[in-house]
Amino acid sequence: MAKRLSLTEIDQTLAALPGWKLDGKFIVKKYRFREFLSGVAFVNEIAELSEEKNHHPFIAIDYKLVTLRLTSWNAGGLTDMDVALAENYDVLYEKYKGK
Amino acid sequence: MAKRLSLTEIDQTLAALPGWKLDGKFIVKKYRFREFLSGVAFVNEIAELSEEKNHHPFIAIDYKLVTLRLTSWNAGGLTDMDVALAENYDVLYEKYKGK
Repeated sequence: MAKRLSLTEIDQTLAALPGWKLDGKFIVKKYRFREFLSGVAFVNEIAELSEEKNHHPFIAIDYKLVTLRLTSWNAGGLTDMDVALAENYDVLYEKYKGK
Repeated sequence: MAKRLSLTEIDQTLAALPGWKLDGKFIVKKYRFREFLSGVAFVNEIAELSEEKNHHPFIAIDYKLVTLRLTSWNAGGLTDMDVALAENYDVLYEKYKGK
């Protein structure tokens, strides 16, 4: 099982992840899209990746705004897996920026 | 523009829509799935229908639980459009029950 990150580690991590914020046991980011269906396409990529990694974020689609929320239930908080996925999501988003 | 439903009309409507609940200016329903990706496939169908009708619900995907939340912003509350879409969502869900 992945080790839970300390508050110091979380602070350092968030400093390197623009747009991600700490919210209790979660890290959260909101992604904006020009078109509703671009946000949906982004969510489909996130979903495929989640299944592959067996690590699922909470996803909200509020019209052209997609919110992703990550935590590691089995560790009772944030782990390296959440950080790695947050980085992956940001990379995937590059494709959809302005779309 | 569609006419806003009265509270009496909303009550009558909800009586005929199992699982849908009133929450302020919204009606809300939670749909359960056996597999995460079945919920995502359901959301894709909802998204296509939303674009077609130009009426978008708020969507949350919390692992195998999908929550849909409808209102008519331009009417400041619930209209026949929300009721029609809620019925459509329930029909779409039939395909995914137990999946």
